[in-house]
Amino acid sequence: MLEELKKQVCRANIELVSSGLVVYTWGNVSEISSDRRYVVIKPSGVDYSVMTPEDMVVVDLQSGETVEGPWRPSSDTPTHLELYRRFPRIGGVTHTHSIHAVVFAQAGMDIPALGTTHADYFYGPVPCTRSLTEQEVQEAYEQNTGKVICETLAECGYDVLSVPGIVVRHHGPFTWGKDGASSVYHAVVLEKVAEMALKTLQLNPQATMPQFILDKHYHRKHGPGAYYGQKK
Amino acid sequence: MLEELKKQVCRANIELVSSGLVVYTWGNVSEISSDRRYVVIKPSGVDYSVMTPEDMVVVDLQSGETVEGPWRPSSDTPTHLELYRRFPRIGGVTHTHSIHAVVFAQAGMDIPALGTTHADYFYGPVPCTRSLTEQEVQEAYEQNTGKVICETLAECGYDVLSVPGIVVRHHGPFTWGKDGASSVYHAVVLEKVAEMALKTLQLNPQATMPQFILDKHYHRKHGPGAYYGQKK
Amino acid sequence: MLEELKKQVCRANIELVSSGLVVYTWGNVSEISSDRRYVVIKPSGVDYSVMTPEDMVVVDLQSGETVEGPWRPSSDTPTHLELYRRFPRIGGVTHTHSIHAVVFAQAGMDIPALGTTHADYFYGPVPCTRSLTEQEVQEAYEQNTGKVICETLAECGYDVLSVPGIVVRHHGPFTWGKDGASSVYHAVVLEKVAEMALKTLQLNPQATMPQFILDKHYHRKHGPGAYYGQKK
Amino acid sequence: MLEELKKQVCRANIELVSSGLVVYTWGNVSEISSDRRYVVIKPSGVDYSVMTPEDMVVVDLQSGETVEGPWRPSSDTPTHLELYRRFPRIGGVTHTHSIHAVVFAQAGMDIPALGTTHADYFYGPVPCTRSLTEQEVQEAYEQNTGKVICETLAECGYDVLSVPGIVVRHHGPFTWGKDGASSVYHAVVLEKVAEMALKTLQLNPQATMPQFILDKHYHRKHGPGAYYGQKK
Repeated sequence: MLEELKKQVCRANIELVSSGLVVYTWGNVSEISSDRRYVVIKPSGVDYSVMTPEDMVVVDLQSGETVEGPWRPSSDTPTHLELYRRFPRIGGVTHTHSIHAVVFAQAGMDIPALGTTHADYFYGPVPCTRSLTEQEVQEAYEQNTGKVICETLAECGYDVLSVPGIVVRHHGPFTWGKDGASSVYHAVVLEKVAEMALKTLQLNPQATMPQFILDKHYHRKHGPGAYYGQKK
Repeated sequence: MLEELKKQVCRANIELVSSGLVVYTWGNVSEISSDRRYVVIKPSGVDYSVMTPEDMVVVDLQSGETVEGPWRPSSDTPTHLELYRRFPRIGGVTHTHSIHAVVFAQAGMDIPALGTTHADYFYGPVPCTRSLTEQEVQEAYEQNTGKVICETLAECGYDVLSVPGIVVRHHGPFTWGKDGASSVYHAVVLEKVAEMALKTLQLNPQATMPQFILDKHYHRKHGPGAYYGQKK
Repeated sequence: MLEELKKQVCRANIELVSSGLVVYTWGNVSEISSDRRYVVIKPSGVDYSVMTPEDMVVVDLQSGETVEGPWRPSSDTPTHLELYRRFPRIGGVTHTHSIHAVVFAQAGMDIPALGTTHADYFYGPVPCTRSLTEQEVQEAYEQNTGKVICETLAECGYDVLSVPGIVVRHHGPFTWGKDGASSVYHAVVLEKVAEMALKTLQLNPQATMPQFILDKHYHRKHGPGAYYGQKK
Repeated sequence: MLEELKKQVCRANIELVSSGLVVYTWGNVSEISSDRRYVVIKPSGVDYSVMTPEDMVVVDLQSGETVEGPWRPSSDTPTHLELYRRFPRIGGVTHTHSIHAVVFAQAGMDIPALGTTHADYFYGPVPCTRSLTEQEVQEAYEQNTGKVICETLAECGYDVLSVPGIVVRHHGPFTWGKDGASSVYHAVVLEKVAEMALKTLQLNPQATMPQFILDKHYHRKHGPGAYYGQKK
């Protein structure tokens, strides 16, 4: 089932590695089927260099049970599922341990919107979630990671696709988009803007960007008045 | 029209990517025709890996209208045009979001001339422009970006080819030269000297370089007394 | 003798180079035979690009004498041997001069456990040993390096396989695992978590991680309740 | 003349580029003939990708005149010559603008000996020269650069081969060795130890290393008691 989707998810996972964001098996990409019943995701701990579409795991969105596939799904699967359940417009999710995004997660700080590179993709600071409580960690760690992401986005009042990424406290980045490939794209962007923000703060701890530049850059690429790129 | 120029501009854009300064479509190179009537520039948001000379867009220097080409030109085109109109000696322009140059743009700081690597190409600090005002952003953002570059160079009293680059506040670097390839070269140099300057300031915030070393290094490579490289 | 083991050790040394952790001959990997009588190790100062399994050196665990091989063993051999003698569960050892792990060694600081990337492999801070004394350096430097590693692990009360690495004061990292390949894997992980920790401390010098997240992440990958990866 | 030496010098220059230390033409390697009458050096401003042994320039050690070759020699040639004249044991010289070594040059700071990576190759801090005076710069800049290197080494009381490198204030690193290839090797090592030192000082500004560890590591690789590597 879902053979085309498996190919896309496999390709997106491999692209994640060739982007340089991932060493070993430290990352995973998923995508949801068009009827939003199934999620296709990377198997857990399988080497990217030998991974084929047949290795992808199909999981039921509601039950979380594996429906097809020779392997266990990524251990982060419950986090992915929580995001798909809560946000019907998300089509793909990526998780990595890319260096600079992890640094903000470990420091417990939002990635501030300091320039147009950030504004082109993220319409506001990329938030850092709160720490999970001891109980949340022990009871259903991966699912609660998804819940704290949703909680943080709600607190920020963000439209989920206008800030397509977050850093989970002590852990690392999750990004999303209309499909798996788009979530990988946002993972790459997030790593770059995190590196830029870290080094900017080292040079000038008071750096900020006016709201009207954030507005301008975000809206020239996204929404009805966009004029970046080609007409669709 | 301008088939040879399209080849050169396409090659310069591809060289920009292979230099490692650009991910995805975050950069653009243009070059002006020898009669200074037309500017050839990268199309907006088109993937570098499939780009050919036929994809390049020809724009009229004065009107800014597209004269030939299957795509919209880069959204930064009005900035390029403004530079060509104001400075008749500029033949090529490059824009990137390279990490360390962006860091100075985000920090709102000039890149100081701290060593001979800088002095070999930039005869003084690489300036950071002021922020655009809200009105400038809303009315004609890209063209006003070009205007604030010109304004900043005028305030510095710089000869435009002796400091072939700038960082635009909150945004990133623009560089130029006698042609497109030369503007790419300066984009690479600017990124290197920005990285060196950032790390130097972290090690010694008081670092400076005497004017006579700046003079010596710049003039051994440029102008009538130059003796670096081979006789032309 | 031990032809299969020589192939594995040669391959592990070459993988160390392709991981980008080592320039020139600045690293070495060893593995112990299944009867724990012999250690196979890289020769000293031999170029990785021409190294073959036949170049590997077989050393007697107890006497430290070379048993077979055309070259002198790595000058760090006595350090490796000390670790094998003391810890019967270690099957492979790697030493590198990777940048960020060396930085912690030179700074004389433990690498704190600040995030889940660290917690997935190291169940606690990666310790930095004390300095060797002048006498320890002059009498049996390499062996005493092994002894101070053992002393430090004992002081930390660590199970040796649950924190499979250390940084030796003024020197650099040693890592270990069930075999040579696993010790190389841990060398790569250690370098990544050292880079993350350095940059996190620059952004937030007070960064810490709760013990229950360390527990959760370590145990979801290791031990009886592990559920990361595939069933063995 | 000196065809074999030209091949070696060409190869050493190309190795310098493949080491990642050099972009464009920002580096040069030379080697002296066995009779110490001629120095073979890279031509000035010639692209490495098309360079062949025939492009190498032969210069007379005493007069500095070009004896053979189709190009002008590197503009840094008088610096190289000064080092060969003063130090009869130097056989090869390399100059680069590698990032972290330049950072110490721009900061005006010696690279302190903080660890064994440094101690394996440099028997003490790598000194930073004083600034040249305005007169020194204007009269014979490149030759005076060589003189200030010699002056600095004399002040340090260094044996020239035991600290085979230096950073010239505001400029960048020069390294040397028994031949051209060895000077390139030291350029790579210097860049690595500079990066390690910069990051160590950011983590612990008080970091130091005891003299007896410097002694031990240097002497286990160099001199009569050396036991690193293979018997010669």
